Amino acid sequence: MKKKIMFLLLVSMFSFSLFSEGTKEVTLSTETNSTKSVKNVILLVGDGMSVAQIATTDAFIGAQKGQYLSKLNFEDFNHQGLTSTYAGDRLITDSAAAGTALATGSKTYCGAISVDMNKNELKTILEYAQDKNKSTGIVTSTRVTHATPAVFLSKNIDRNAENEIAMDEAYSGVDFLAGGGYRYFVSKDNEKGLASKRTDGIDLIKEMEKAGYRSFISEEETIDFLNYKPKAGEKIVGLFSYSHLDYAIDDANQPTLAQMTDKALESLSYDNDGFFLMVEGGRIDHACHANDAVTAIEDTLAFEDAVQVAIDFYNKNPNDTLVIVTGDHETGGLTLGFAGTHYESAYEQLQNQKISYEKYGSQYFADYKKSHSISNCNLSDLENDLNYYFGLNNLNDEERTSLQNALKRSVAGEVITGTQESDYLLYGGYEPFIMEITHILNKRAGVAFTSYSHTAVPVATFAIGNGSEKVNGMFDNTDIFNFMLEAMDSTN
Amino acid sequence: MKKKIMFLLLVSMFSFSLFSEGTKEVTLSTETNSTKSVKNVILLVGDGMSVAQIATTDAFIGAQKGQYLSKLNFEDFNHQGLTSTYAGDRLITDSAAAGTALATGSKTYCGAISVDMNKNELKTILEYAQDKNKSTGIVTSTRVTHATPAVFLSKNIDRNAENEIAMDEAYSGVDFLAGGGYRYFVSKDNEKGLASKRTDGIDLIKEMEKAGYRSFISEEETIDFLNYKPKAGEKIVGLFSYSHLDYAIDDANQPTLAQMTDKALESLSYDNDGFFLMVEGGRIDHACHANDAVTAIEDTLAFEDAVQVAIDFYNKNPNDTLVIVTGDHETGGLTLGFAGTHYESAYEQLQNQKISYEKYGSQYFADYKKSHSISNCNLSDLENDLNYYFGLNNLNDEERTSLQNALKRSVAGEVITGTQESDYLLYGGYEPFIMEITHILNKRAGVAFTSYSHTAVPVATFAIGNGSEKVNGMFDNTDIFNFMLEAMDSTN
Repeated sequence: MKKKIMFLLLVSMFSFSLFSEGTKEVTLSTETNSTKSVKNVILLVGDGMSVAQIATTDAFIGAQKGQYLSKLNFEDFNHQGLTSTYAGDRLITDSAAAGTALATGSKTYCGAISVDMNKNELKTILEYAQDKNKSTGIVTSTRVTHATPAVFLSKNIDRNAENEIAMDEAYSGVDFLAGGGYRYFVSKDNEKGLASKRTDGIDLIKEMEKAGYRSFISEEETIDFLNYKPKAGEKIVGLFSYSHLDYAIDDANQPTLAQMTDKALESLSYDNDGFFLMVEGGRIDHACHANDAVTAIEDTLAFEDAVQVAIDFYNKNPNDTLVIVTGDHETGGLTLGFAGTHYESAYEQLQNQKISYEKYGSQYFADYKKSHSISNCNLSDLENDLNYYFGLNNLNDEERTSLQNALKRSVAGEVITGTQESDYLLYGGYEPFIMEITHILNKRAGVAFTSYSHTAVPVATFAIGNGSEKVNGMFDNTDIFNFMLEAMDSTN
Repeated sequence: MKKKIMFLLLVSMFSFSLFSEGTKEVTLSTETNSTKSVKNVILLVGDGMSVAQIATTDAFIGAQKGQYLSKLNFEDFNHQGLTSTYAGDRLITDSAAAGTALATGSKTYCGAISVDMNKNELKTILEYAQDKNKSTGIVTSTRVTHATPAVFLSKNIDRNAENEIAMDEAYSGVDFLAGGGYRYFVSKDNEKGLASKRTDGIDLIKEMEKAGYRSFISEEETIDFLNYKPKAGEKIVGLFSYSHLDYAIDDANQPTLAQMTDKALESLSYDNDGFFLMVEGGRIDHACHANDAVTAIEDTLAFEDAVQVAIDFYNKNPNDTLVIVTGDHETGGLTLGFAGTHYESAYEQLQNQKISYEKYGSQYFADYKKSHSISNCNLSDLENDLNYYFGLNNLNDEERTSLQNALKRSVAGEVITGTQESDYLLYGGYEPFIMEITHILNKRAGVAFTSYSHTAVPVATFAIGNGSEKVNGMFDNTDIFNFMLEAMDSTN
């Protein structure tokens, strides 16, 4: 697909190497494997990213290069293991229980934010780092109050209590916090006129500024953030969207995950005691829930760009740094094979999608729905869209019929709630017409999903640096907490 | 599910520890990691076994123990990596190209038996072992002329040339050969009256006996084989079925994969120069093609039993032995999550299946089909079968309707060829009624398949012993050949 050049690049001062064509070459420093201290721990979590998400991206980039598979940079890490993800109360975990396992080393129930099965608060790896006078940072492409970032900065019995979670985060002492979701931080009467979901009249951004944070709030302050030179000892908060940041494929005027990671490392590395940084590629999961393979792939590539920033830092500080890349669980039951395509694959079919299911729905298809009724909607009205936004043309009869049926259901405004089993299997509660588009692309390419939820397929974990030698074999997600803690503890 | 006790046990002298309930405890000897020689290399290949096949088995056994996951013995190996499987001419490989990669370190086209893309013969790891005066062995649950065993003993431009492959195997000099498929070895006029597919009048078993092989041919000689005490320097061939050995779940009077592995190690370990042994759990693949989850799980457990035999040998010879466990590719696009069950799983639903789709079809349902027509077939005739053989009862309306529809199509004798796309997606060319049974079990349990073919999902590779430290990170299936060769080469 066409590589997109963000306008931000024109005004940003940061490394152009992040945006070069194709996947990155990893030149890893020779590992020392000494028992010396690990000053810096960088944990990068692809939400919903398991073996198939990685391999599908490999095949997608491979197709661009005229080969079957390419390799993501972290696939060259010299230590790797498989990781079980089950929760305390269910085989198939959620991001809250999985995140709590990574952050605290404890199994807990789905929905728990760093509390145990009995709702007792758990100490997080970020707090252990703070105990050692290390700086700490959290970067995500979701709302910073969403489960994966939340478990590192908050304790709550309910992942949905995002107002409370934001409050915890504001007072957590974290040194660098960047992502989306200002709606739980700004007060309803904030002077920028930003929309808010806070219910208590408190403006947490003002509170954070009082405590010394330099703040960058809303998409409007993206360029300021990118141009900003962090100072030693200064805390930074950047919240660039009302809710989640946009999907990578949608090219919003927001910092990329790599740009936020780069700024975080610039800021945190002033600390002579080192730092803990968690970076979440949070929307691979969302795209896989919607079975939108290309959007998941593009967010996986954005995640890889962030990993490259960590690799670059590691290469400059190989004796002081542990880098771990993992997923919190698999989403969607993705595999690289579809019954209808038998042994064949056609990843070229995926190369021309330019937009996520979500943006197409909210910015284009929503208008069509408003201006059409079931009596005057016709697939031919939208064939230009299908071709331009999804590279979907030369529809066969079966594809045409399923799209036309889905279009009628979408335009009729039927709520596909999932109470009707057969409808749920078809559309998963999403917009029928748009789901049919991505399903057809998947079928043509020979990729398939089995679910609109998470699955219990294990994830893969990759590591470089001191302490990475433990990342091997089959282990549990709670072990990743131990790997990080033991690496930091060897400082003493 | 009820663990089955084979009558063979009553007469066999071999370790009962193999057949204890549940999964095995692995007590691994401390690894030496020296650069000393590796006398013995044992490669165990689960055909069609990738991460999801392993994890589904973990969840199946976990459910028996009242926990979410158990662990297969090789998941405790201290080295593990992820392995790409693409062929020379296709992203999704077949067992011939994948086997050739393992056996020779070269990518080739699908269908190739240890010949390269230009059909030139390749030297195999088994031949390298022979060059070093090591003994060699091949054990499989498929026909020994099937692709995975064939690539170690034959060179052929076509995996289907099984008469030629058998000829190569008979004259390969292999010291121990056990599995199924005597039909390509015995001549049509053999005195045992065994059915044959040989076309040249040659009886390869007689030829092998002339060359010094002790032979055990057909199921009838299973007990003799199990009771036989191999002698130093003696070659052994055992072919216990006309085609593939039966699925583990079907409890045939044939040696188990573990019993054949045990006998192979007993025989090969006389050699002071060491040995190369390949063991294939070959029918995990077949069960996954048919989307029969329980049959795949039971064959994975039988494979684990064979791995245990290798572990036991390793523990007695830790400084001399490299054990590698891998899959050749993923089959079926298996995942541990189904849209219809959302975040829930119910592995207890799988515990009462007593028979494979294949045996139910050939031994029970075939009779029903013969004696019924579309006008007098009724699901109620078969509800006892569903309950007894599959643990499938309390059918809901949707299940009942889909089973009744499939039953009619089966009884009508419709050939579901796959030319009709929607039929292929439903039944994959298998017997509609039986496919509907396993599909319903899968849906109830919350497991799902996306294909009736192989997929390009990477496999997992596990290793213990000298040379195993290289088995780490993301590598290609051709690298496994190199790991084995380098381990053997360090002898010099």
